[in-house]
Amino acid sequence: MKRVITFGTFDLFHIGHLNILRRAKEQGDYLIVGVSSDELNEKKGKKSIIPLKDRIEIVKSLTCVDEVFIEDSLELKDEYIKKYNAELLVMGDDWKDKFNWVSCNVKYLERTPNISTTYLKNSIAMVYKD
Amino acid sequence: MKRVITFGTFDLFHIGHLNILRRAKEQGDYLIVGVSSDELNEKKGKKSIIPLKDRIEIVKSLTCVDEVFIEDSLELKDEYIKKYNAELLVMGDDWKDKFNWVSCNVKYLERTPNISTTYLKNSIAMVYKD
Repeated sequence: MKRVITFGTFDLFHIGHLNILRRAKEQGDYLIVGVSSDELNEKKGKKSIIPLKDRIEIVKSLTCVDEVFIEDSLELKDEYIKKYNAELLVMGDDWKDKFNWVSCNVKYLERTPNISTTYLKNSIAMVYKD
Repeated sequence: MKRVITFGTFDLFHIGHLNILRRAKEQGDYLIVGVSSDELNEKKGKKSIIPLKDRIEIVKSLTCVDEVFIEDSLELKDEYIKKYNAELLVMGDDWKDKFNWVSCNVKYLERTPNISTTYLKNSIAMVYKD
């Protein structure tokens, strides 16, 4: 059984999130997802709208996801990979070549065009600003 | 096998949506979800941020959901109930007593406090308005 791991914030869950999770699952048989903690997001300079607990519940409820855990640090990627026995790390191609140092294979998948949490936040702010 | 039906827009998919779908599923064995079309939302005076196609994909991808269809009209509730052989209609209690006229049993479930698509839109607009 091929175990695949991926990571993300999954704030304001949208079709881009779902597409990458589905395609990550297609790379193997069992999909493990690290959902970044609110503290990690702040370190990355992002403030998530949806609290960790709810982001986890939503990712967990998807048919393509088998296991979910909290990602506390970007630097611990390789520890998580070993802990969860992952053969393949999947990331969006906005991270291209950033994780080539880990101990398993890495695949960077193309992001869904025209959707992202930032794009959603900006469109909503634009429509509802008045 | 008890078939349950529910309806919604599921715009900016959030924990309140997930909670009501899970609890609807707990009322029976098979959950059918009508996702309202962009045209129906406009008639209800709501403009959805996420297009119908993507709202459907997300609802379809949940482990608690068995079948999804497009809801084109609020008045057709009873036709949908008959077509999908539903024994129970579940709605959020913001619709309390509005659908007592349909031909199957109806249960209005309490909404999750402090979350709604409108609340999300307003919070985002407030944070990102500048």
